[in-house]
Amino acid sequence: MLVTLTTDFGLKDWFVGTIKGVIQGISAQTTIIDLTHEIRSGDIRAGAFALAQAYQFFPRKTIHVAVVDPGVGSSRAGLAVQTERYFFVGPDNGVLSWALAKEKILTIRRLENRKYFLPLVSHTFHGRDVFAPVAGHLSKGVPCEKVGPEQKDFIRLPWPETVRKGHGIQGEVVYIDHFGNAITDIPHSAEMIGSRVLVGGKTRCYVEAFYQAVAPGKPVAVPGSSGFVEIAVNGGNASQILKLKTGSKVTILH
Amino acid sequence: MLVTLTTDFGLKDWFVGTIKGVIQGISAQTTIIDLTHEIRSGDIRAGAFALAQAYQFFPRKTIHVAVVDPGVGSSRAGLAVQTERYFFVGPDNGVLSWALAKEKILTIRRLENRKYFLPLVSHTFHGRDVFAPVAGHLSKGVPCEKVGPEQKDFIRLPWPETVRKGHGIQGEVVYIDHFGNAITDIPHSAEMIGSRVLVGGKTRCYVEAFYQAVAPGKPVAVPGSSGFVEIAVNGGNASQILKLKTGSKVTILH
Amino acid sequence: MLVTLTTDFGLKDWFVGTIKGVIQGISAQTTIIDLTHEIRSGDIRAGAFALAQAYQFFPRKTIHVAVVDPGVGSSRAGLAVQTERYFFVGPDNGVLSWALAKEKILTIRRLENRKYFLPLVSHTFHGRDVFAPVAGHLSKGVPCEKVGPEQKDFIRLPWPETVRKGHGIQGEVVYIDHFGNAITDIPHSAEMIGSRVLVGGKTRCYVEAFYQAVAPGKPVAVPGSSGFVEIAVNGGNASQILKLKTGSKVTILH
Repeated sequence: MLVTLTTDFGLKDWFVGTIKGVIQGISAQTTIIDLTHEIRSGDIRAGAFALAQAYQFFPRKTIHVAVVDPGVGSSRAGLAVQTERYFFVGPDNGVLSWALAKEKILTIRRLENRKYFLPLVSHTFHGRDVFAPVAGHLSKGVPCEKVGPEQKDFIRLPWPETVRKGHGIQGEVVYIDHFGNAITDIPHSAEMIGSRVLVGGKTRCYVEAFYQAVAPGKPVAVPGSSGFVEIAVNGGNASQILKLKTGSKVTILH
Repeated sequence: MLVTLTTDFGLKDWFVGTIKGVIQGISAQTTIIDLTHEIRSGDIRAGAFALAQAYQFFPRKTIHVAVVDPGVGSSRAGLAVQTERYFFVGPDNGVLSWALAKEKILTIRRLENRKYFLPLVSHTFHGRDVFAPVAGHLSKGVPCEKVGPEQKDFIRLPWPETVRKGHGIQGEVVYIDHFGNAITDIPHSAEMIGSRVLVGGKTRCYVEAFYQAVAPGKPVAVPGSSGFVEIAVNGGNASQILKLKTGSKVTILH
Repeated sequence: MLVTLTTDFGLKDWFVGTIKGVIQGISAQTTIIDLTHEIRSGDIRAGAFALAQAYQFFPRKTIHVAVVDPGVGSSRAGLAVQTERYFFVGPDNGVLSWALAKEKILTIRRLENRKYFLPLVSHTFHGRDVFAPVAGHLSKGVPCEKVGPEQKDFIRLPWPETVRKGHGIQGEVVYIDHFGNAITDIPHSAEMIGSRVLVGGKTRCYVEAFYQAVAPGKPVAVPGSSGFVEIAVNGGNASQILKLKTGSKVTILH
């Protein structure tokens, strides 16, 4: 069985390693894969986006654990959600919601059965004390129904919908990646190649098939691997050069 | 079998990957888990604290390797220590000592049997050439007694003991984590909730059950997942905001 | 089977995790090891050096995947190369070449058989869509011959050769590591101990057996674990203190 981890714990401390120790101690045959631990502290939207981008590239029955959890220790619930293809475990604060929006949900369970937690549950590290052991038990075959009572729904983050404007479509930047590429919420389509791209009302570049279609140092929009239009700079950092950040408005003119 | 790694090698280079290649080459069935590789260069105390915090969350017989080793290549010894529950491998410079202080020790072995090293041992990378292969062989079942002669004791880092002061207890910050939370050496207890916390002689916050018990941006002390009182800022970086660093004095008034 | 990954994808996003999901989905028994994902964006030479340093510490038949790929989506080829001991997968841009220079090559294959790619191949993420599934299939036992037609040769990065100068040997810095140590292209040998080291024409230090042979804060050259002479500062960052960077000239006087 596979378990993936998406957190804002960073890699500086022993937190992620400890979570893995707990899971392996419960289910020795599990393989654990890091999606990322470098989500900005408490940035639930970035965690939700990362998970939604990656989860479907994993084999069926993978258990996806996402812990971006600024409300840890308060009354927010913890969830285990079984869908037709996967399991999801994490706080009920929206971090699972963009992935779940694409899945057929079978059951939503509120984590309340302390039998599947560590014996001592801290107020600050449910990643280790609650979510890791629940994932370990699911991985070992404990049915999702056992971890707690059914819950009707879960907290959903609003998705920034794009807007049709005359001959164009307006959206916004939803994520800046490691390379400084700005991923928008505008789904790409083949007929967009050659279209003009406006940022802050000004034409900044055109949609091309790949980065090196423009000269080094020049901006370009490409059909990103995310399924969305991404704004990049060939060999450079688009976020810095074009001053793009999450929420920046982007328009594509057909 | 599980092997954990705690080092200051960082993730920029091929060092950690190479260590894993050596271990897997000796013992293909071993699962290797990173505790952290982001210990500050040569910061033996931070490595010792990370290991002491995490090791007991792993299943019995896990082999914990810690390499924060500024004296590599000099005459400092390498050790393999078997305790009732675990194995520990690393330089004899104190990095293992805070974990070992909590364990029942069965045997302390000085790494001298070159049969369990790589054929060529460099002067600068015993992580790859000595500690990794020894861990691989232990993982494969080589008895700890084989790796070298018995040694009576090991180098122990002093632990900064807390001091009772009238109605309070004075301790110090021993670790700053990724979130900027300052972990102290003061063990938390249930009756501390509501107590006043002094930093540098001034009241800075109170002990609460969890981060969000105070407003965003406000400081709070919480019973940390470490077992110690931790000073945090709800949604912020306590180390930066309160100018806390390792060694900063903290007092809790009952 | 083992697969190693060397990329410039960083750890901030879900890219590396996704690659692992694809590989595990094809070949569940594979163990995946990160060499590094912190190669500077597009720095093919650094990726080539990291791979060449680490690959031979892995067991035979390991599949080494290296994706530093600024030309992704353009006409550059993707390769799978089988050598006497290993497999290598990555773009044909030189990133594999310094490792391959040390190997006996059996076959060089151009990745063209889309049967071994993901069904949808993006223009920007061949790590996920091409290289990961090819590595997964090789790991599962698909013969290298199946992934595409034979290619006679591959693109080779020039290696900066050292120059004999009177009583000395002149080379250059080829890599700065996490500790700030400057790795040169000068192969070390036992008789170099005690030799004078010139940087920028000035004597900066001597070759010693290990870092702590000099006082804290002092520069020293050591026989590095890389097989090359490395310039370090005991307890400090040689790159910053001595203003060393890739390409800096270094001379060792016998």
